[in-house]
Amino acid sequence: MAKLYVVGIGPGGKEHMTQKALETIKRSDVIVGYTFYIELINDFLEGKKVISTGMKGELERCKAAIEEVKNGFDTCIISTGDPGLYGMAGPILEMADGIEVEVIPGVSAAFCGASELGAPIMHDFCTISLSDLLTPWELIEKRLDLAAEADFVIALYNPKSMGRQTQIERAVEIIKRHKKGSTPVGLIKNAGREGNEKRVYTLDTIDFDFIDMMTVVVIGNSKTYINNDKIITPRGYSI
Amino acid sequence: MAKLYVVGIGPGGKEHMTQKALETIKRSDVIVGYTFYIELINDFLEGKKVISTGMKGELERCKAAIEEVKNGFDTCIISTGDPGLYGMAGPILEMADGIEVEVIPGVSAAFCGASELGAPIMHDFCTISLSDLLTPWELIEKRLDLAAEADFVIALYNPKSMGRQTQIERAVEIIKRHKKGSTPVGLIKNAGREGNEKRVYTLDTIDFDFIDMMTVVVIGNSKTYINNDKIITPRGYSI
Repeated sequence: MAKLYVVGIGPGGKEHMTQKALETIKRSDVIVGYTFYIELINDFLEGKKVISTGMKGELERCKAAIEEVKNGFDTCIISTGDPGLYGMAGPILEMADGIEVEVIPGVSAAFCGASELGAPIMHDFCTISLSDLLTPWELIEKRLDLAAEADFVIALYNPKSMGRQTQIERAVEIIKRHKKGSTPVGLIKNAGREGNEKRVYTLDTIDFDFIDMMTVVVIGNSKTYINNDKIITPRGYSI
Repeated sequence: MAKLYVVGIGPGGKEHMTQKALETIKRSDVIVGYTFYIELINDFLEGKKVISTGMKGELERCKAAIEEVKNGFDTCIISTGDPGLYGMAGPILEMADGIEVEVIPGVSAAFCGASELGAPIMHDFCTISLSDLLTPWELIEKRLDLAAEADFVIALYNPKSMGRQTQIERAVEIIKRHKKGSTPVGLIKNAGREGNEKRVYTLDTIDFDFIDMMTVVVIGNSKTYINNDKIITPRGYSI
């Protein structure tokens, strides 16, 4: 029987794909994804049926993928990063009653970005998406406040979009209720793929103009420091 | 000049290693790691110098790896999962002044475990390690409390060890101040590698005896539900 694979391709550069993601894409009949992500794996698509749609076409893509499986074709629906974090695993499992689904994990943007910034995560951390398309903004504010109070390292996903420009400034304002202005902040644009750029700031000096929808923002905890332009959060060893 | 690579090998199964992790290990002269992790990549070690030490030998391994690079050998120090989350990237960057270091990200245990449980993460989430070897227990309790209040999906790392058996029960008690007893909980032992076992419970029914040091505990948010033994956290789409 045909199967639906929800595949995390990692941040986009082929070198960060897992063996399993690569092999699953290679032996599937149909590949479904957001147009920009499909381009990232263009090398592996020869001879396959490709279904790509634009932004906000998530549910349309899920339906198309499920339809292909019901017609007997092994199908991959792809997410960048890990499909289980703000990706396609959830909606597929919500919709896909009666067909077999396998989720294939990948390297999430926060970890790839962190690896380029040094070791800013290292300890207890959280991810918060600033997109209020699917989550009430009040809940996002509450999470920002409590996460900062808990002294988590915080990775912010979707800090801006075309229509959303100011939430990141508001988020930093909330975080500064609990974290010092000198807390290191790493900005990574296009982590782990072409167009990759990084910047190291603090909560007080952060350049909001640098941030766009492809940027991940990593904010340290109370022990995080900067050394030679690398951000380091100590694990706690006596070094 | 020789270089030090801090390599995330993912959860352990070769299929979850990235291309970059695999290729970096293959072309390095020296591989340093915890004995159990070295065994996971045994197929790639022929002709290489291997330095492995037992548990709690973290700093010893870092020193050995830095020494090899100073002697001119390209060296990998390996972590399971991602080296930037509770891994070797931090201590290496704290100790490795004067040598070139590259961190290579990997698939973390929480994401691999989540992929086997369904889609339990999907939304804003946090990781908390219950090991109080390097972190005061009071801070861990504070984070558990605030994370539960913020309605994060919570992934607990290091829920038990040989000498630490009761903290996981205390952690669940704290989390239940804010989360309902019916909140789904996934337990994954040896996620993404041999010996893999999973169980689906709720906060009220969780089997503490199943949990050991190789288990990741994933606790849902207020929207998480169980369907056909899969744990699903909705992203928020109207489905």
